[in-house]
Amino acid sequence: MPVITLTTDFGSADYGAGILKGVIWNIAPKVQIADLTHDISPQDIMEGALVLWRCTPYFPDGTVHVAVVDPGVGTPRRGIAAQIGEQYYVGPDNGLFSMVLARAEASGQSTRFIHLDNRSYWLDEVTSVFHGRDVFSPVAAYLASGTALDAFGPTIHDPIRLNIPVPFRSRHGWMGKVIHIDHFGNLATNISSDHIGDPEKVIIRVNDERIHGLVATFGERPAGTLVGLIDSSNSLAISVVNGSAAAFLNAHKGDDVEIIEQQ
Amino acid sequence: MPVITLTTDFGSADYGAGILKGVIWNIAPKVQIADLTHDISPQDIMEGALVLWRCTPYFPDGTVHVAVVDPGVGTPRRGIAAQIGEQYYVGPDNGLFSMVLARAEASGQSTRFIHLDNRSYWLDEVTSVFHGRDVFSPVAAYLASGTALDAFGPTIHDPIRLNIPVPFRSRHGWMGKVIHIDHFGNLATNISSDHIGDPEKVIIRVNDERIHGLVATFGERPAGTLVGLIDSSNSLAISVVNGSAAAFLNAHKGDDVEIIEQQ
Amino acid sequence: MPVITLTTDFGSADYGAGILKGVIWNIAPKVQIADLTHDISPQDIMEGALVLWRCTPYFPDGTVHVAVVDPGVGTPRRGIAAQIGEQYYVGPDNGLFSMVLARAEASGQSTRFIHLDNRSYWLDEVTSVFHGRDVFSPVAAYLASGTALDAFGPTIHDPIRLNIPVPFRSRHGWMGKVIHIDHFGNLATNISSDHIGDPEKVIIRVNDERIHGLVATFGERPAGTLVGLIDSSNSLAISVVNGSAAAFLNAHKGDDVEIIEQQ
Repeated sequence: MPVITLTTDFGSADYGAGILKGVIWNIAPKVQIADLTHDISPQDIMEGALVLWRCTPYFPDGTVHVAVVDPGVGTPRRGIAAQIGEQYYVGPDNGLFSMVLARAEASGQSTRFIHLDNRSYWLDEVTSVFHGRDVFSPVAAYLASGTALDAFGPTIHDPIRLNIPVPFRSRHGWMGKVIHIDHFGNLATNISSDHIGDPEKVIIRVNDERIHGLVATFGERPAGTLVGLIDSSNSLAISVVNGSAAAFLNAHKGDDVEIIEQQ
Repeated sequence: MPVITLTTDFGSADYGAGILKGVIWNIAPKVQIADLTHDISPQDIMEGALVLWRCTPYFPDGTVHVAVVDPGVGTPRRGIAAQIGEQYYVGPDNGLFSMVLARAEASGQSTRFIHLDNRSYWLDEVTSVFHGRDVFSPVAAYLASGTALDAFGPTIHDPIRLNIPVPFRSRHGWMGKVIHIDHFGNLATNISSDHIGDPEKVIIRVNDERIHGLVATFGERPAGTLVGLIDSSNSLAISVVNGSAAAFLNAHKGDDVEIIEQQ
Repeated sequence: MPVITLTTDFGSADYGAGILKGVIWNIAPKVQIADLTHDISPQDIMEGALVLWRCTPYFPDGTVHVAVVDPGVGTPRRGIAAQIGEQYYVGPDNGLFSMVLARAEASGQSTRFIHLDNRSYWLDEVTSVFHGRDVFSPVAAYLASGTALDAFGPTIHDPIRLNIPVPFRSRHGWMGKVIHIDHFGNLATNISSDHIGDPEKVIIRVNDERIHGLVATFGERPAGTLVGLIDSSNSLAISVVNGSAAAFLNAHKGDDVEIIEQQ
C-alpha cells in the first residue's frame, strides 16, 4: 500500500489535518500517511512548492502528495492531479507543484496533469471553503488505491507555473536570489553547489556583506558568525551560527545573492 | 484494523501523545493512529467537544476516539467509554463527548455509556496524573482490537453534559452565541446554515457591528473586511479577511450573535 | 512489524520529520512511525535523553528509537546504534541514550553498542548536515526490518555518557537537582518517589521556598500555589497551579532541590 503525504498551511494547532486522515482512511484504510508540514506560511504557495521539492525525492515510487495551500478555494481555480516521474500530486492548480515539475522536466522524466472534474471521486457534499477535505483527500485516497489518473478528469497541458527565479551568469560568477527564509532566519537561495567552484575560494555577496568561503557545518565557526553552506538539499544557504541571518542582513525573499569566483 | 484518534491539550511540543501511541501499539500493533489536535487550550473541555463534533463524521465506522482534556484527573471524576452511532469514545466523564452525543440523539442514533472500572484493561500502574496513558489509551486499544464495550465496566445513563447554548427565536430572526475563537481570531457560532434564509439578504448583528449578507469565500472581499460565511462544518463563522475578527470586534466566547431576516 | 519512534530538535514547523518518514517507508513500508517530539530545545541533548527515558518503557519490545539532537553533525563524532534491553536506539554518539542506558544497567538488562561505519546501510549521498536523514533513518529502517545489529558496524564499549546528576544523602534527607524545565515552567527533578518517605510530612526546599507535603494532583490547591507532586514518570516535579514554577522561583536547570524528612 503506498504512502500519502500532507503539506498544508492549516497550522499545527488545527484539526484540519486530522480530518484529512479520516477521509483518506475511510477510502484507503491501509495507506500510511506522513505529515510533511502543516506550517506553511498562510497562502505562501512558493514555500509549499519548496517543501515538496525538498521532500519528495525521499519518498517511494507511487507516493501520493496532497498539498493544500489554497488561497483561491471557492473561486473558479481548477483542482488538479498529476503524475510527475513515479509519484503523484493532488491539490489546487496554483503552482504548488512547479518546482517538482521543473526538476522532472530538466531530467527528462514524464509528467501528466489532469483537471479534477469527476465528482464521483469527491465527498458527497463539497463546500466552497475546504477542498482539501472534500476533493483532494478523497482523490488522493482513490489514487493510492489504484484508480487510474484518467478516471479523475481530462488531461490538461497548462498547469499554472510559479515564476521561479533561476540563477544567471554575472560578470564575476552567478547572480541568484533568496527564495525562502525559515523560522530560524536562515536564507535559502536558488543557487546550488553546481554554481560554486572551489568552496574555499568563493565569495558570497548578499546585501552589503561578503562571506569568504563556505563552511561544511555550523560547528566550524563561533556563534554570531555569518556563514554560507551547502544545505541538505544541495543548495546554498546563508545563516548566522546560533542566530538569524535574516535579522543580521535585514534580508527579504527576492534579495540578490551573488557568487563571485576568485581566480 | 480500525483507526484510533487522539485529541488532547498536551501541546504539540509535548511527548505525551507519543507515549499514548506506544501504549496503543503495545496492545493493538496494527491500528492506524491519527492526531486530531494536541493544542486544545489547556483544560478547555468545550473546545475539545467542538473539535470532536467537527472531525468525527469524516472517520470510518468503528473508529475509536480518545480525548484527554482532563482537569479533574486524580479526583473521583469517572472515566468513560461510549458507543455513539457507529463510533467509539474514551476519556474522562466531563462533557467532552456532549456535542457528538447531542447530534446523535437528534438524529435518532443509538448511544451507550460505560463507566470504566475494570482495571484489567488498564496499565498495571495507574498514576493520579496521567489517565490518558494509564487508562484511556489501553482501553481504546482493547476496544479497537474487538473487546466488547461491556467488558470495561457497567452501563451508565448519566454522562456529564456540557451546557451547550442553542440558538433561539428572536423578534427579528435567531439569537445565537460565539462558542469558540480560533488562533486566527475567527469566531465560531452555534448558528448553522439552517437558521439562515437568503444568504444575500441576511443581516448579522454582533457586538456593535452589522454584516450585510454572507460571502461564499474570503476571496470575495478585500483584506480587513468583516465578513460572515458558512464554514466547513456548516456553521456561521465571523471573520476578518486576513485579520482577526476577535480583535476587530473585541469579541469573546459567549457574545451574542443575532441573525436578522429581512423581508 | 515493529514501531520506529522519532525524537528531534527540528521544530514542529519543519518538514525534516516528514523526510525521515519517506526514507524509512522506502526501506520498511509497513513499520508504524510515532513522533515522540520534534520540539526538543535546539541542541539540548539532556532534554532529548530525558524524553527517551520517559517514553521508551511504554513501547513494545523491538521498537527502534531514532533520536536526532546532533550539534556535532559533520564533525568526527560517531554515529551509533544500540540494543538496550529489548529495544533499539539509533543516533549520534553524544549521550542521548545515557539515561535509558543507566536505567537498564541499574536493573541488570543487557546492552550493546555499535559504531555505524557500514555505508551500505546509508543513503547513497551523505551530506555533512543531515545525518538524521542520510544515516540514522535508513539504519533504523533496516534494523526494524530484521537486519542484525552486527551488520551496521563494530561493537564499541565507550559510548558517550552525559554527566547525569544523582541525588545524594544530605544531613536532613536527600539533595537533588532540577534537571529540566518544560514550556509550562514546571520543574523536573532527579528525585524519585523512592527518595521520599511520608508524602504528607516531607518538606521540599528549593531556592528560598519550602513546600510542606506533596499533593496528589493539581486540583487540590488553588491557582498560584507552589506545589510538589510525583509526576507521571515517578519523579518529583515542582509546579505552580495554573502558573510557572520557573518564573515563581526564578529557577534554572541545575538548581538544588532538597528533600527534608521530618521525624
